[in-house]
Amino acid sequence: MKKYKSVTAFGPATVANVGCGYDIMGFAIQGPGDEVTVSLNENNATSLVELSGPYGHLIPGAREKNTASVAINCFLQTLGRSELNLRISLVKNMPLGSGMGSSASSSAAAVFAANELLGNPMSTMEIIPFAMEGERIACGAAHADNVAPSLLGGFVLIRSYNPLDIIEVKCPEDLFCAVVHPQLELHTADARRVLKMEITMGNAIKHSANTAGFMVALMKGEYALLSRSMQDLLAEPRRTQLIPGFDPIKENALKEGALGCGISGSGPSLFALCQGEKTAQHVARTIQQGFEAHGLQSETFVSALNAPGCSIINSIEV
Amino acid sequence: MKKYKSVTAFGPATVANVGCGYDIMGFAIQGPGDEVTVSLNENNATSLVELSGPYGHLIPGAREKNTASVAINCFLQTLGRSELNLRISLVKNMPLGSGMGSSASSSAAAVFAANELLGNPMSTMEIIPFAMEGERIACGAAHADNVAPSLLGGFVLIRSYNPLDIIEVKCPEDLFCAVVHPQLELHTADARRVLKMEITMGNAIKHSANTAGFMVALMKGEYALLSRSMQDLLAEPRRTQLIPGFDPIKENALKEGALGCGISGSGPSLFALCQGEKTAQHVARTIQQGFEAHGLQSETFVSALNAPGCSIINSIEV
Repeated sequence: MKKYKSVTAFGPATVANVGCGYDIMGFAIQGPGDEVTVSLNENNATSLVELSGPYGHLIPGAREKNTASVAINCFLQTLGRSELNLRISLVKNMPLGSGMGSSASSSAAAVFAANELLGNPMSTMEIIPFAMEGERIACGAAHADNVAPSLLGGFVLIRSYNPLDIIEVKCPEDLFCAVVHPQLELHTADARRVLKMEITMGNAIKHSANTAGFMVALMKGEYALLSRSMQDLLAEPRRTQLIPGFDPIKENALKEGALGCGISGSGPSLFALCQGEKTAQHVARTIQQGFEAHGLQSETFVSALNAPGCSIINSIEV
Repeated sequence: MKKYKSVTAFGPATVANVGCGYDIMGFAIQGPGDEVTVSLNENNATSLVELSGPYGHLIPGAREKNTASVAINCFLQTLGRSELNLRISLVKNMPLGSGMGSSASSSAAAVFAANELLGNPMSTMEIIPFAMEGERIACGAAHADNVAPSLLGGFVLIRSYNPLDIIEVKCPEDLFCAVVHPQLELHTADARRVLKMEITMGNAIKHSANTAGFMVALMKGEYALLSRSMQDLLAEPRRTQLIPGFDPIKENALKEGALGCGISGSGPSLFALCQGEKTAQHVARTIQQGFEAHGLQSETFVSALNAPGCSIINSIEV
């Protein structure tokens, strides 16, 4: 077994909720993400998390407040290795409050790097709970619908939180997504505040039917059913008020070939599922133009749905 | 094309709700069911539905109140053939208020027979809405989770009611169910009355996660996941009070090998999903003994999940 002095991991961005899977579905996207380097520290003084990258200056470096270090600390505690004083560097490429799982990218990459550094004492599935603790610090709830797909890659269903039950679901090869991130910050906690705490039995039943239909469609590659199932009765009706131009932008995306379109995570990014990469690229531009018409610049990303999860991108052996 | 004077169809019993699919899932079971004969009437006087079989004396024969005739009348109206005066005979084998889709067996068989008699102007999928009208008369709501599997056979997901969107899902060949019907009558309308009209967001999310997990499990034949997903947060917690001994009976069924166990439809019948026919037979006896311990006699049925739907069992050509 290789012994490392330092390991750098990449944690991909993710789309959570996926239109009809509020709090229970998410998938990784290829391209954007954060990088975390974990090194065995030669001097023993506890230090801050080293921050760099375009958004590094916006997050706390203090170990008890930083998503990456909180996740790693939980991991080390469980392993009984709290004495290890690891140096943690985070390249924060992902904007905050984007709806693309920014904090999850950091905490997933952090635990993934630490696990590799220590010779992989746990499986990727097993380290998910530690990355969830990073989420708790970042947005107040230890949710798994971003960290699980960021770590595992691909499409993930969170069947249960207690006990944690995470199901990986293979998607059709020609299923792509367009993700468009407008220059607008929306905090998960604020986006959660607009939600209702009770829903009608009728809507709960419709919601479960769409969720079930979506899973069948995804597994069978039935795109017409996928399209019909992508209806969010829980979050979208309350959250669109937070995103300028949501209704016409979504309508245009569907008109231009998207199978479904919705809010990525808690927004403000939008995502659209499309058959084929070309359609996804076209839909990404359509959504971008829609935001422009509302005075918002945006970045676009296009990715296959079976995108890879966390990966080691650099390491230095002892 | 054959021209018929008379057609007899069999409509199988069904299990609706299926533990975690309240109002949206159902499957056909092999064995029990009702028979409906539809004949071209030579004399034109409107007559009552002819009733026979062990439970025929318990249901109304008047055309506007009988499940079978109401379903057929809707069908004829849509076809513009209301002038046809069909003679309808119903062999009512299924007990009422059993939770095994008794009324659905009648209305499904009725429309299926009428469609065949008229040379199949519609597909089986297309005649579902007429059978649903029979359900409306029988229990106050035009639900599809019994009539759709009774007509189509196999396992069915009702993705939406408006528009009606019914998805057929193939089950693993070795998945069987045990259905046990205690001598106790429970009306759907009463069973619906005990339900809450609002549920918490948290329970709605958990419910959708179980529904999604169940569909993945069913399609992949992953029995451990199937088992974990079979949790009903909507109906079961409120309805078990209506079924003597529910909790210990369910516990025993699971201990004796059932993957999951719950209320069939609105009860009082219980169903259990099992891997293999032998286990299903054993579990059926276990549940039966459980009812006995609570002073209730019961009938047991064991069936594969991919059971056939309505079929023509007799016909007389012109």
